[in-house]
Amino acid sequence: MRKLKMIVAYDGTDFSGFQRQPDRRTVQGALEEVLSRITREPVQVTGAGRTDAGVHAWGQVIHFDTTSRIPLSRWLRVMNVALPRDMAVRRVEEVPLSFHARKDACWKRYRYTLDNRPVPDVFTRRFRTRWKGPPLKVDRMRQAAHMLIGTHDFTSFSSAKSPVVNRVRTLYRCQVWQPEKGVVAVEVAGNGFLYNMVRIIAGTLSEVGAGMLEPNAVREILDARNRARGGKTLSPEGLTMMEVGYNPWEETEGEHR
Amino acid sequence: MRKLKMIVAYDGTDFSGFQRQPDRRTVQGALEEVLSRITREPVQVTGAGRTDAGVHAWGQVIHFDTTSRIPLSRWLRVMNVALPRDMAVRRVEEVPLSFHARKDACWKRYRYTLDNRPVPDVFTRRFRTRWKGPPLKVDRMRQAAHMLIGTHDFTSFSSAKSPVVNRVRTLYRCQVWQPEKGVVAVEVAGNGFLYNMVRIIAGTLSEVGAGMLEPNAVREILDARNRARGGKTLSPEGLTMMEVGYNPWEETEGEHR
Repeated sequence: MRKLKMIVAYDGTDFSGFQRQPDRRTVQGALEEVLSRITREPVQVTGAGRTDAGVHAWGQVIHFDTTSRIPLSRWLRVMNVALPRDMAVRRVEEVPLSFHARKDACWKRYRYTLDNRPVPDVFTRRFRTRWKGPPLKVDRMRQAAHMLIGTHDFTSFSSAKSPVVNRVRTLYRCQVWQPEKGVVAVEVAGNGFLYNMVRIIAGTLSEVGAGMLEPNAVREILDARNRARGGKTLSPEGLTMMEVGYNPWEETEGEHR
Repeated sequence: MRKLKMIVAYDGTDFSGFQRQPDRRTVQGALEEVLSRITREPVQVTGAGRTDAGVHAWGQVIHFDTTSRIPLSRWLRVMNVALPRDMAVRRVEEVPLSFHARKDACWKRYRYTLDNRPVPDVFTRRFRTRWKGPPLKVDRMRQAAHMLIGTHDFTSFSSAKSPVVNRVRTLYRCQVWQPEKGVVAVEVAGNGFLYNMVRIIAGTLSEVGAGMLEPNAVREILDARNRARGGKTLSPEGLTMMEVGYNPWEETEGEHR
């Protein structure tokens, strides 16, 4: 028995999320189907995080156990030939049997991208959310973003439906920049994320950027610990899971893939 | 009666090409359907060029006549609300009734993009063709590309099925560059393009880049005036119609959107 870890990218548009569901196309389901076919044994996949329907990944991490003797050097190619075109394996490693993709994760990094231009862009529409409100002012968004960094109770930034009791999390990074004119990216890294947390952070920062909220309001929203005070939950297509870290967070400056 | 000219972008993946066909989703069909609905009169659309199934456009140009009194300033928004998400109108102008999107075009510019990286990219796969051959050497491709610029008989670079008799065309530009590591773009501008010409040029230059042909071979291929001598016709997804010009060509340096 060996344990393999893979870094997986997918275009989430045509998936009903990560988690396996009967009669639905899911990321876990597609991976398990392909892995079982390749190894000729039933394979169970565990992911670092369960992305929602429509959410993408550049660096989702999965693990699975297998008795297959396929050499490590061949796995990458075998997988990318077998996977559907909206999925790809970027890296394969053998890991100790004790490794766990979700439980061992120290941090995750997500990016949310908004398109604020007047004309929709047909080439990037699957990966960016259109912001139809007033123009986004990046300076304002940065001021607000800065207040979210650190250890806080993020109740105001998580779905009211979430059953989690302890909503204290640490954000290591919360950056806002313009990859091109009229496009705004929000990137967050933290030790854990509550349900819908990134989409609510992006929604709140956008409302600040559009002038609907003052940057300082973010501090009050945090303190209120009340979901009703946070901004709207933005739609899933702008969200991409970028990276999962298995060592303690160290800030690496200016790394904007 | 007024005549409108529109610059249209589309993701060609889910279209059976530009030209209207019964029971197929086509660009012309989708535009005519939306325009007829908006204007409440039957509308016939003429495009500058008929892109093939799977080919994209950033700057396709269309014209149509209408008696609609929708003010010019409202057209852009009305169209982008009504169009499906894989199409967008980038610009609207009123033009003289004598304007013709195809007949008045002086030049067209196309881009063909190849992805030569070992791992497929799920985010750009709809707009780039994967090159699975040996690594592409851009220097070699540039040498070959240079020989194609100018006025030549492009018989070796057009589909043998084409019924056109005069296959002399002028290429104003034929550039090769790397937008990012492992990605190669070929951009051509010319006064007219034969059937499959850009895809055959991209195929031939790729074979040069991969070391399967010498750069100088391109001159012999041109001289042979024989389709069998040119490189393979690459698949449609890497091809995008970038721009149509209605004034004589003037080289604008360094403009790489």
